[in-house]
Amino acid sequence: MPALKTKRNIQEYISGYIDGEGCFSISFSKRDKFLVGWETKPSFSVSQNEDRAQTLFLMKRTFKCGFIRRDFSDKTLKYEVRSLDDLIRHVIPHFKKYPLVSAKQRDFKFFEKVCLLMQKQLHKNKNGLGKIMNLAFQMNPSGKRKYTKAEMQKALR
Amino acid sequence: MPALKTKRNIQEYISGYIDGEGCFSISFSKRDKFLVGWETKPSFSVSQNEDRAQTLFLMKRTFKCGFIRRDFSDKTLKYEVRSLDDLIRHVIPHFKKYPLVSAKQRDFKFFEKVCLLMQKQLHKNKNGLGKIMNLAFQMNPSGKRKYTKAEMQKALR
Repeated sequence: MPALKTKRNIQEYISGYIDGEGCFSISFSKRDKFLVGWETKPSFSVSQNEDRAQTLFLMKRTFKCGFIRRDFSDKTLKYEVRSLDDLIRHVIPHFKKYPLVSAKQRDFKFFEKVCLLMQKQLHKNKNGLGKIMNLAFQMNPSGKRKYTKAEMQKALR
Repeated sequence: MPALKTKRNIQEYISGYIDGEGCFSISFSKRDKFLVGWETKPSFSVSQNEDRAQTLFLMKRTFKCGFIRRDFSDKTLKYEVRSLDDLIRHVIPHFKKYPLVSAKQRDFKFFEKVCLLMQKQLHKNKNGLGKIMNLAFQMNPSGKRKYTKAEMQKALR
């Protein structure tokens, strides 16, 4: 990676990069052992071809959290933050200070709301999870989901 | 688009966005009417789904050049600068001031070299075009080309 010049605003650079390539998502997994029947999984992620993955390493250093792993399905590297604590302490404050310019900002706002509800443990009871589902299903409308909202509501305990 | 906060460094934002989504390319078209037999076409471009194309309009305003058009092949919008004069006056200086972090910077450096050779009209004679081809064929190695370097060299006049 070329040395970064002094006086660069790498935070803005990262927001611009994420505007194009990043993804804020809330996914759900069926977990019979969980009281409410579902696990709520927030994720901030971005993938890149390995030969130009330098920006992923820059983000890991800047956010001071998350992991970079190989995605064998499409030969890319993926930088991902899944820890709710890291998302709330490191990722969300960044995007509040350097907001996205595109409509992806809308996904970020839903994502932030869900993370704050999870911080209050609301994903662990039926009413709270209902609220979280309503927010999550408004995000990334073109993305694929394993379960429909109706299937989830049916299996809520 | 949300109003941009004051004190934002939108130039860095754009460089970050381009690191992920942008493309610097030099393509060639066979032109029997051209003395040298080939047209050299530089292009800086970036595509985005229409529903979050706000960043493309931001770039058009910031670079003060280029066009946004619909790409019917994949239902996206594309921002593109093809004018050599605009590339040299507006686009290249931006990326010299706010360089890309990833290996895409390598493509930019080749692109810059080709544009400067074209400014000197070197694409209009056999030797100059040979130099330009050598640079261009080192860019975007995963991209598709209509003609191989051998085919082009064979038809150089």
